[in-house]
Amino acid sequence: MKGLLDRWETLCASSAILRFVDVNLRGAGQVMFQDNPLSGLLFIIAIGWGSYAGGVPQVAIGGLVALVSGTLAAYWLRVDRDALRAGLYGFNAYLVGLALPTFLAPSPLLWACVAFGGAVSVVATLAITNQFKTWGVSALTAPFVLVAWLMLLGSYAFAGLEVSALPISSLVTAIDPSAANPLRFGDFLQGVLQSISQVFLKGNGFAAVLLILGLALNSVAAAVFAVLGAAVAVVTAHVLGAESELITGGLLGFSPVLTAIALGSVFYKPGPRVVIYALVGTVFTVIVQGAMNMALTPFGVPTLTGPFILVTWLFLLPRLQFK
Amino acid sequence: MKGLLDRWETLCASSAILRFVDVNLRGAGQVMFQDNPLSGLLFIIAIGWGSYAGGVPQVAIGGLVALVSGTLAAYWLRVDRDALRAGLYGFNAYLVGLALPTFLAPSPLLWACVAFGGAVSVVATLAITNQFKTWGVSALTAPFVLVAWLMLLGSYAFAGLEVSALPISSLVTAIDPSAANPLRFGDFLQGVLQSISQVFLKGNGFAAVLLILGLALNSVAAAVFAVLGAAVAVVTAHVLGAESELITGGLLGFSPVLTAIALGSVFYKPGPRVVIYALVGTVFTVIVQGAMNMALTPFGVPTLTGPFILVTWLFLLPRLQFK
Amino acid sequence: MKGLLDRWETLCASSAILRFVDVNLRGAGQVMFQDNPLSGLLFIIAIGWGSYAGGVPQVAIGGLVALVSGTLAAYWLRVDRDALRAGLYGFNAYLVGLALPTFLAPSPLLWACVAFGGAVSVVATLAITNQFKTWGVSALTAPFVLVAWLMLLGSYAFAGLEVSALPISSLVTAIDPSAANPLRFGDFLQGVLQSISQVFLKGNGFAAVLLILGLALNSVAAAVFAVLGAAVAVVTAHVLGAESELITGGLLGFSPVLTAIALGSVFYKPGPRVVIYALVGTVFTVIVQGAMNMALTPFGVPTLTGPFILVTWLFLLPRLQFK
Repeated sequence: MKGLLDRWETLCASSAILRFVDVNLRGAGQVMFQDNPLSGLLFIIAIGWGSYAGGVPQVAIGGLVALVSGTLAAYWLRVDRDALRAGLYGFNAYLVGLALPTFLAPSPLLWACVAFGGAVSVVATLAITNQFKTWGVSALTAPFVLVAWLMLLGSYAFAGLEVSALPISSLVTAIDPSAANPLRFGDFLQGVLQSISQVFLKGNGFAAVLLILGLALNSVAAAVFAVLGAAVAVVTAHVLGAESELITGGLLGFSPVLTAIALGSVFYKPGPRVVIYALVGTVFTVIVQGAMNMALTPFGVPTLTGPFILVTWLFLLPRLQFK
Repeated sequence: MKGLLDRWETLCASSAILRFVDVNLRGAGQVMFQDNPLSGLLFIIAIGWGSYAGGVPQVAIGGLVALVSGTLAAYWLRVDRDALRAGLYGFNAYLVGLALPTFLAPSPLLWACVAFGGAVSVVATLAITNQFKTWGVSALTAPFVLVAWLMLLGSYAFAGLEVSALPISSLVTAIDPSAANPLRFGDFLQGVLQSISQVFLKGNGFAAVLLILGLALNSVAAAVFAVLGAAVAVVTAHVLGAESELITGGLLGFSPVLTAIALGSVFYKPGPRVVIYALVGTVFTVIVQGAMNMALTPFGVPTLTGPFILVTWLFLLPRLQFK
Repeated sequence: MKGLLDRWETLCASSAILRFVDVNLRGAGQVMFQDNPLSGLLFIIAIGWGSYAGGVPQVAIGGLVALVSGTLAAYWLRVDRDALRAGLYGFNAYLVGLALPTFLAPSPLLWACVAFGGAVSVVATLAITNQFKTWGVSALTAPFVLVAWLMLLGSYAFAGLEVSALPISSLVTAIDPSAANPLRFGDFLQGVLQSISQVFLKGNGFAAVLLILGLALNSVAAAVFAVLGAAVAVVTAHVLGAESELITGGLLGFSPVLTAIALGSVFYKPGPRVVIYALVGTVFTVIVQGAMNMALTPFGVPTLTGPFILVTWLFLLPRLQFK
């Protein structure tokens, strides 16, 4: 595969169009921290399949529109070339483009917002990156979450953007204990797979398999931490007595999956102490996911990857030296 | 006019009282980024007129009380002399003093809070300025918004502070599409003017004209960006399907007006690329205004200039070099 | 007493177990900024008494479990030795351990969360300390508030954690003015004492006396500022027309007490100007306490020491030189 990528790199070096494609593919790959066009391609295929199977092709299309729009904005803003080529200005745009059509009804105005949101996410990436490099920590998916929260909240204020699947605003109440059912093995497996695909806002087992493959292609460690993170999240959520429906739908596991990959394989060098640290972070992300689900209840918007960002920042900011 | 200002400066240099007056006038001017005592004077007259015409003279008086209190606090705290003389410790205090009597009923306790809030806004200005200079970005009106939000929220908890015009706390729901009516030219014009006067929490066309005059006196570019920002905001809000009443009342445009002035004429050097960047920021501020209107619904307090601050920070933090 | 402490220090130097005990005692002492094992011991006794008298011994036990867990986590994370020995990694853990059993019903899962929360609070302490040292300001009790808010919010999402005493989520409404009764001298005295003991989430006069004693043992200034801060808070809250029940229960005074100690005796050198500054900060903390009580109403969680943190950061960030 190394040979294949080298040849692709040579092609990109000689063609601005292929380079543009490469930057976009890497942008998709960076949703799960992989600076690899093949991983990105597999991720895009996985999401395409998940959207098509779920009867919402506009989600996959939205992702691509925002991704291209974000990449164009990054070129126009003349951002740092190395970061751009590594796909670091694409993944937040891609996620904005997946999120908006997931929660809002398709319309010309929605497509305009998707393209606009993709471009604005690049400004947000520059801003948050600039702030957090003070402490040597990356922006993660915070630009996506910020821009998507604002646009989803805004949709309530604008008749031109019709809400299709946002949670209904309500006061905070404790869940019904009977909703925390026993967890069978089939449920467990489904929860693990959907926790991985929900990183891209999709609940689809086959998409999850493609995503794991895409990870393994570039980093076996990342794939292992993704699967282990999902398993830990499902078990933790179940032990805490979370709603079974949320667990099996992967809705309590996608943030922990990202935390596990980030702490376990990306920002710290893997090792026994790091594994324990990543485990604690992953478990804590499950609690924070429950907390943020509740905290956002009055606002009628989903957490997106907010819990992952909060916990991963918290666990990266100490800048520990694990030896 | 240059001669007039020079003579005034000579007078101020020889009289502590006139210097104090000068610092306060410049404080009012800085609400719209103008370090010019004449601009400040025109702004104060505009707000005086708007308050008197609206039957709420206490608003104009509150502004002056807090402005003087803030300036005295700044002297007592021995802040940086150059920043003080440029009015940078006055504009947040002035806005606190306009906001409290706009939303709370007059009473001796309210006046005490106005003076106290003006003084505390200076501490908040020092604090936030200190934080954000890490990234070379200014505090904007964040001290005002922070102090005013806290005091307005606090008014619900204290029987001594009677709420007179705060929005009622409720859950988030989408607006009624029928509230987004067609926009006639008269509505458009009213929306543009009131968007400018609402920067000072007043919906008054004549006040808006005085404000534009005050801007043009010191910076024609600022006046142009204010009017264009207001026009862009009104059109954007209308296209998105916002409530017509909010648009014509200037309630979706005052934050975009500030964003347009700040990005277009204050913090970046004007140029074609900067105009596009400011335009994107201005449009995004309209979306954020809608979002924050919704996000604050459960709390029963208004956004104040929160959307302007959020977007302008986001668009300044990248510290782009537009050439 | 100096001799006693010296002898204790010699013992600790020769025994890892006594050193561990010492670190934990200082951790409890740092809740009120005292790096002194005897102060910490008195604080623990005060809370033990308050919990026992209130029929909730699990609160005192929870505090100790989390304190020990946090200290162990700090050793494992190999934090800075001097800060560890000064108890700076213990006080947030101790408070997490007091808060969880105060608001949630005892169960094996709760105890696991107490120990886990104590450990995570150390990570949060490292993270927030790292951020705020950019501006030369300390993390205060922010790690406690962050971790406890997340776990309390999370308890609504997990059937395994049963809510026992959290406030009920509701919309924001102004208090009934008739709830702001006249304040008698007995009420005043009770309000002052309970404001001090509520720093540790307990309303108990005898515990307050022990806490004042523990403060005076290490710093007479701290004890004086604690009592004065409580008195100022009670009077301010009453003048503003707060609910009498909250005032006499110490629920509007515990954050101001901490602000008064922090600004008056810990972070600035005492002096006439500092006294005025601390007074302004203390009064403002009462307003912020009212505001945050309202702001958190829709979420169904208490403010904890949030108002203290917000105001003290605001008043420390200017890094004023009072001469």
